[in-house]
Amino acid sequence: MNLRSGRLKGQMSREVADFTSSLEFDRRIFQADILTNRAHTTMLMEQEIIPHEVGEKIIGALDELEKEGIDALDLDTAVEDIHMAVENYVTSVMGPDAGFMHTAKSRNDQVATDLKIALKEEIQKIQKEVLTFIEVITEMAEENLDTLMVGYTHLQHAQPTTFAHHLLSYAQSLKRDYGRLHDAYQRMDLCPLGSAALTTTSFPINRERTAELLGFQGPMENSIDGVSSRDFIAETIFALTMLGTTLSKICEELIIWSTYEFRMVELTDEFSSTSSIMPQKKNPDVAEIVRGKTAVLNGELVTILTIIKSLPQSYNRDLQEVTPHLWKATDTLSSALRITMGMLSSVEFKGERGEELARANFSAATELADLMVRDVGLPFRTAHQIVGRAVTVALDKGMKAEEIDAHFLDEISQELTGETLQIDNAVVKKALNPREIIRSRKVIGGPAPSMVQKVIGNLREFIDENISSY
Amino acid sequence: MNLRSGRLKGQMSREVADFTSSLEFDRRIFQADILTNRAHTTMLMEQEIIPHEVGEKIIGALDELEKEGIDALDLDTAVEDIHMAVENYVTSVMGPDAGFMHTAKSRNDQVATDLKIALKEEIQKIQKEVLTFIEVITEMAEENLDTLMVGYTHLQHAQPTTFAHHLLSYAQSLKRDYGRLHDAYQRMDLCPLGSAALTTTSFPINRERTAELLGFQGPMENSIDGVSSRDFIAETIFALTMLGTTLSKICEELIIWSTYEFRMVELTDEFSSTSSIMPQKKNPDVAEIVRGKTAVLNGELVTILTIIKSLPQSYNRDLQEVTPHLWKATDTLSSALRITMGMLSSVEFKGERGEELARANFSAATELADLMVRDVGLPFRTAHQIVGRAVTVALDKGMKAEEIDAHFLDEISQELTGETLQIDNAVVKKALNPREIIRSRKVIGGPAPSMVQKVIGNLREFIDENISSY
Amino acid sequence: MNLRSGRLKGQMSREVADFTSSLEFDRRIFQADILTNRAHTTMLMEQEIIPHEVGEKIIGALDELEKEGIDALDLDTAVEDIHMAVENYVTSVMGPDAGFMHTAKSRNDQVATDLKIALKEEIQKIQKEVLTFIEVITEMAEENLDTLMVGYTHLQHAQPTTFAHHLLSYAQSLKRDYGRLHDAYQRMDLCPLGSAALTTTSFPINRERTAELLGFQGPMENSIDGVSSRDFIAETIFALTMLGTTLSKICEELIIWSTYEFRMVELTDEFSSTSSIMPQKKNPDVAEIVRGKTAVLNGELVTILTIIKSLPQSYNRDLQEVTPHLWKATDTLSSALRITMGMLSSVEFKGERGEELARANFSAATELADLMVRDVGLPFRTAHQIVGRAVTVALDKGMKAEEIDAHFLDEISQELTGETLQIDNAVVKKALNPREIIRSRKVIGGPAPSMVQKVIGNLREFIDENISSY
Amino acid sequence: MNLRSGRLKGQMSREVADFTSSLEFDRRIFQADILTNRAHTTMLMEQEIIPHEVGEKIIGALDELEKEGIDALDLDTAVEDIHMAVENYVTSVMGPDAGFMHTAKSRNDQVATDLKIALKEEIQKIQKEVLTFIEVITEMAEENLDTLMVGYTHLQHAQPTTFAHHLLSYAQSLKRDYGRLHDAYQRMDLCPLGSAALTTTSFPINRERTAELLGFQGPMENSIDGVSSRDFIAETIFALTMLGTTLSKICEELIIWSTYEFRMVELTDEFSSTSSIMPQKKNPDVAEIVRGKTAVLNGELVTILTIIKSLPQSYNRDLQEVTPHLWKATDTLSSALRITMGMLSSVEFKGERGEELARANFSAATELADLMVRDVGLPFRTAHQIVGRAVTVALDKGMKAEEIDAHFLDEISQELTGETLQIDNAVVKKALNPREIIRSRKVIGGPAPSMVQKVIGNLREFIDENISSY
Repeated sequence: MNLRSGRLKGQMSREVADFTSSLEFDRRIFQADILTNRAHTTMLMEQEIIPHEVGEKIIGALDELEKEGIDALDLDTAVEDIHMAVENYVTSVMGPDAGFMHTAKSRNDQVATDLKIALKEEIQKIQKEVLTFIEVITEMAEENLDTLMVGYTHLQHAQPTTFAHHLLSYAQSLKRDYGRLHDAYQRMDLCPLGSAALTTTSFPINRERTAELLGFQGPMENSIDGVSSRDFIAETIFALTMLGTTLSKICEELIIWSTYEFRMVELTDEFSSTSSIMPQKKNPDVAEIVRGKTAVLNGELVTILTIIKSLPQSYNRDLQEVTPHLWKATDTLSSALRITMGMLSSVEFKGERGEELARANFSAATELADLMVRDVGLPFRTAHQIVGRAVTVALDKGMKAEEIDAHFLDEISQELTGETLQIDNAVVKKALNPREIIRSRKVIGGPAPSMVQKVIGNLREFIDENISSY
Repeated sequence: MNLRSGRLKGQMSREVADFTSSLEFDRRIFQADILTNRAHTTMLMEQEIIPHEVGEKIIGALDELEKEGIDALDLDTAVEDIHMAVENYVTSVMGPDAGFMHTAKSRNDQVATDLKIALKEEIQKIQKEVLTFIEVITEMAEENLDTLMVGYTHLQHAQPTTFAHHLLSYAQSLKRDYGRLHDAYQRMDLCPLGSAALTTTSFPINRERTAELLGFQGPMENSIDGVSSRDFIAETIFALTMLGTTLSKICEELIIWSTYEFRMVELTDEFSSTSSIMPQKKNPDVAEIVRGKTAVLNGELVTILTIIKSLPQSYNRDLQEVTPHLWKATDTLSSALRITMGMLSSVEFKGERGEELARANFSAATELADLMVRDVGLPFRTAHQIVGRAVTVALDKGMKAEEIDAHFLDEISQELTGETLQIDNAVVKKALNPREIIRSRKVIGGPAPSMVQKVIGNLREFIDENISSY
Repeated sequence: MNLRSGRLKGQMSREVADFTSSLEFDRRIFQADILTNRAHTTMLMEQEIIPHEVGEKIIGALDELEKEGIDALDLDTAVEDIHMAVENYVTSVMGPDAGFMHTAKSRNDQVATDLKIALKEEIQKIQKEVLTFIEVITEMAEENLDTLMVGYTHLQHAQPTTFAHHLLSYAQSLKRDYGRLHDAYQRMDLCPLGSAALTTTSFPINRERTAELLGFQGPMENSIDGVSSRDFIAETIFALTMLGTTLSKICEELIIWSTYEFRMVELTDEFSSTSSIMPQKKNPDVAEIVRGKTAVLNGELVTILTIIKSLPQSYNRDLQEVTPHLWKATDTLSSALRITMGMLSSVEFKGERGEELARANFSAATELADLMVRDVGLPFRTAHQIVGRAVTVALDKGMKAEEIDAHFLDEISQELTGETLQIDNAVVKKALNPREIIRSRKVIGGPAPSMVQKVIGNLREFIDENISSY
Repeated sequence: MNLRSGRLKGQMSREVADFTSSLEFDRRIFQADILTNRAHTTMLMEQEIIPHEVGEKIIGALDELEKEGIDALDLDTAVEDIHMAVENYVTSVMGPDAGFMHTAKSRNDQVATDLKIALKEEIQKIQKEVLTFIEVITEMAEENLDTLMVGYTHLQHAQPTTFAHHLLSYAQSLKRDYGRLHDAYQRMDLCPLGSAALTTTSFPINRERTAELLGFQGPMENSIDGVSSRDFIAETIFALTMLGTTLSKICEELIIWSTYEFRMVELTDEFSSTSSIMPQKKNPDVAEIVRGKTAVLNGELVTILTIIKSLPQSYNRDLQEVTPHLWKATDTLSSALRITMGMLSSVEFKGERGEELARANFSAATELADLMVRDVGLPFRTAHQIVGRAVTVALDKGMKAEEIDAHFLDEISQELTGETLQIDNAVVKKALNPREIIRSRKVIGGPAPSMVQKVIGNLREFIDENISSY
């Protein structure tokens, strides 16, 4: 059997064409490709590099194509890519003079330009959704300024807080996620067009002009860099990975909080799958899928970093494989973002259960120790020791947190330090009251309603400043 | 503006359904799902868990569905998944008794079973392609037993070898890649069916029987493990990642070797893109795309490892997101494998250039030193020193490698050690002849044609042993 | 200011030496390097390639070095690597004849051989620990055959099971983890020694002999492959990553189960950090750190895959950077394994709480539906519908699961299907009893104590078969 | 054999302590921890939360510790972490009043603050090195404005350019790398101190004041976010990964360019390892190790992203494992950066070989086609066709690029289009001259010396603007 001659020749061409074609994902840059061709042609006319009447015809054909849409193109994989398909279209409309369109540019600089145009739009869309999500969170926070819950560290009860305060921790994460998208956008906002194949051209093109026509801040300053750099894609996907991480954490909490054991939140049916046999069972499937899908971003990031790390400068065809992962990442994140926003905003937080847990398990202990420092002047470590012992004794005796009083503390203190504390019992009771604790945390970033309100104000200012830029 | 009430309710249901549906990728397990249902129903009848006539009707409907194909199903995302779609179909054929089909199983164990069935087939397909690739390489090697080339380390000339010898290094990598796929297959070859939701069932089902009917070695021995483990997917993708790495290295070499500077190989037009303007320019686009696409495997592996690492035992919906990345990985690798095989097998290795490079740059130096150890009895480090000096002097004088002779070496030796070597000049000339060097490397794994032939024989034995198992 | 001439020359040499030296991690292959040199020298003598008396002296010096230990070497980074340091040592003992030791080998094949020797030992050490862990789990399972708990899917109550059954799901994962280490070991068990720089040698070496002396199954069959392949490292790290994932999942569950809300397990103080102020707060720090440290494996895997993917065949110095990540991975995993084993084995499972949760939330519902299929002959979907409705009504009325009886079910059935079920009330009560449910799950892999016992037996057989191979 | 009781108890405590201790890496935050304690104590005094004289003593002890250095601390792993070690030290100096130091803060906010302080310094150090590298490149570029080389795409000859132009593509990458570090720095520049355990404190602390004392722009605005977010670490490592990618590409090119086949650059001995036997063999080991070590960044990024993705909000001990990977990443990158800068700046670019390659292989073809568009008014595609045919014919006839003239082109044109071109032969010759081509590429970002000079000017302005900020 001769395997080589037997099976490897023959019908391979089609398989190779399919394998190497970028057409499937080029659809995403169809609009951008028209814009780029139009701007480039305009500039070529203005610089008198191509005849005015030819330029007009090209632009006319591009306008026509835009109206007809992508279905007007022949997208057989044998055509190789969208740039050739567009040129073929224009040629079919106006004949060989369409060839002037490709003067002083190459697919290398064109695809880089197209990608940036399409991606900038995508980023802005996601940025707007992030602002909306922050807005949604501030509204929820405002309605939950006094909704008690216990704050966890190590998933163990730590100190009382409010749902509003917890929600705002999400908003701060989202604010930084927004910032990273913003920075990625700014950094990529220089135009590669005119880099041509890799060394620009001897035609007297005007790169500032095309950059301006296409809405960039200016042209990129090295043409080899112009055709070879894809760090703008890696950076965007990283920013999306971090945003995905924020969403994943929110979902992680919803999953834990909606267990039978926690019972702190109730998901709406819309975002759950209710087992047909166990109606009490409301599975948090949507949150789980968000958690799963955001892991895809981690993978796409690795794919892209792996590809670009191993390449020398300048254009190599490996770069083509970067693009599908970009769109996969933006699409995944975009829907995960909307879904998480919808799910969180429709969740019912169970205030009674929140308060029950906040009171259940000595989460006021830190406050009690602080009280001794503040009112009695004990060093913090000594106060900690007394409270620690008090809680141990209380647990041993089966006492509840609220049964602790000044007298009990004095007994403990006497035993440990030889002296009583003599704190007013009303003060002790106040220290043990989660609502009082919350009210007392009026430091910047703390859970006191007044402070939460202030941060909500800051966040809204942030939204207003940024929303106007679109 | 109330963003929450304004935009988040309403039309969300469809978006959520689309987001959570697995139907797009469930197509891949359509066949397997029919097999599983058929085997399960057969067993239920045999165990008299369901009435015989009901079972017959169910199997009839499944047969019908298999004939009609997947298009007979209603695959609206509202249906959730393929299992429900199949059950709906069977119900539409035979009415509510179709419900018996779901006795003593759950979607949790069913999807795990379906995935294994579909994946096992996929793995075998790829394994067969790997064997073919090894066969192709042995044929190429056989034709190039005497085709000289220089062997590189650090991408610098090291020692002469043959193209055949180099090719066989690919075959050894592929052999291990094959082995990893084999091991992954064996390890996954236990059947989860009967695990039901997670704790099996109180129906007296026969799990050995369904395992046997479905071609598994036996049933999995813990039902929680049965529904929650996806390590078989991670392991398969890892095995494919390693295979992808092998392909990527082959392509890396083809890219470097086909540069103007190396000119060691010529790719056929079929696997190149020839620039329309520079016909001398044969860009190795296909090799570059393989190099790019195999990076996707690295990313898919990370996605899957990230998902499964963070989950507790048992079924969590995040697992659904593992599957698309599995199929993405198998498809990518499968085509990259065929393409690379086609490309490599059609490459023209330029023997003359290979020989030129093998002679160009003192790659025989190691052999010369070995000669002094062997014939003169010098310690290896001393021999190295003499040859090192000889090459330096030769380079300074502009001498070529072949101009070195016994007399010249004696001069160097005299200077360094005070003694001459007195090697026969014919022996020196032999040591400097790359063809002689190759012939002398008749150690296991070496480039001597006889040894290469032997390894080819071993590889063919390996292929024969394994090909018969399909 | 001329930065180039000003700061870049001068003291760089030391920095470069430190940067490129592998000595820090070569300590791990010190023993292996002695073994390799000894075996190679022995073979050289046997083949009469070097004089017998010289060989004896070399072996004597190596024996001496082994006794003195690594501190006898000069490990300044200027020495480059351990191979040179060892050769320097031997030279210092016996003079220039030490140079014979390096006949017919190179650092390229030597380092590959050393790595495999050291890694094989490391793998076996970890394999033994995995067997111990499985043994520990079987002992725990045996003590908890009747310890009720609720089984979760989606972190929601699903069906009753036992702690023993759940524990065995860990054992099955570990068994596959063991298998992957075994396969990696087997696949790497071929010896690269004799590959020399990349094309073997013209000395008549005996590669079977050195392979045998060093405990390998045989020699590798291609010398270029011998010096360039590091897939054995990637595969080992992947196997460890999967083992790390198993450990991480165990820790994830311990973290969730030890929350105040779940209260299913109590960690010992030894594996917790008890806050000084809140003694009720037992933070699961150790479990969290295991979860964190096992993520390191994911990263090390990516590092290695990234390095090897981008290289052409044969030796490239990048490969040196693979090694530190190997040892980092084996060390991290090895300690995480022991720690997790210690933590799990010392955990107190709270049986009462387990039973409470198993009875709390209608987790018997599936069994009730199964009952109707089995005893009344309803199609499964109809049975599901009745039970689903029954649970809804029960919840609405505030009924507990145990209050459901035959009469109540008849009412529901009447309403839905127009017919009563007429099941014996004792049978209903049995179906609702978690202990009865467990007993009834006597299918392979199920939680019935008899079945768990059987699987424990199988696991012990597995341990016995494998432990004997060390 | 009872494995559990036999081996798991007993000596575990030390192993657990070692496993969980962060002390090994806490050395990196020793300085920062003193700063944080000092600033916090100062604020506590100013706010009259602790007695002035106690505060003075604490600060005195901290000053003393700073003078003595980290060796003054007891760093046994039983001490757990650096914060406890510092507090122990202060206590040993001043007695139990040292306990006041820990008033109104927790290790959760303190470690986050320490990390940011230490990391900000590390980032600035690297930023400065990046600016130096850009400066070095501009100097090299200035010296190589007219140094011809061929520009590659797909590693195939594309068009002529200069070494200066190519070098500046590195500078543009580095400029964006710098920008990413800058943005990461800005975003992290908010102080977590005062977040305490997770909900701030009821002491009237002044968070603006400590933020100011520690050189932050202000305090973080949510305390839960303050203790739980580590995105600043992920972002920094991503920025370093991209910088590592830039370095890796530079090294990739040096490796390829220094092959025997390319011979475009010569590395100095300092950055090569010269084989003792083949002095002509200058292995680019250092470049290979940089390429290998920068892959570590990819891995560390995955480790960190994996850890943070799976955690709920607030402090979890897994976060401790993030830190070692941060320092590993900064150290690796920092040395790789300096080494690459030294290597590149000392490289000898072989101008003659550069010119030889630029003239060898029809890389002027694009220019020739452009000429026909410009001077003859042909559509670009037609011009391409003529040149393409001309090159094919030239290759067939064995003509060199420089032998092409106006007459020859006319023949080709006549054949293809029926018309001659009638271009002046001098113009053709000019179009074929690489030096003329370079001169004509005077578009922004192009290789014309004047344009390269302009970009050098812009880069120096960028350096000046930024260097002043340190």
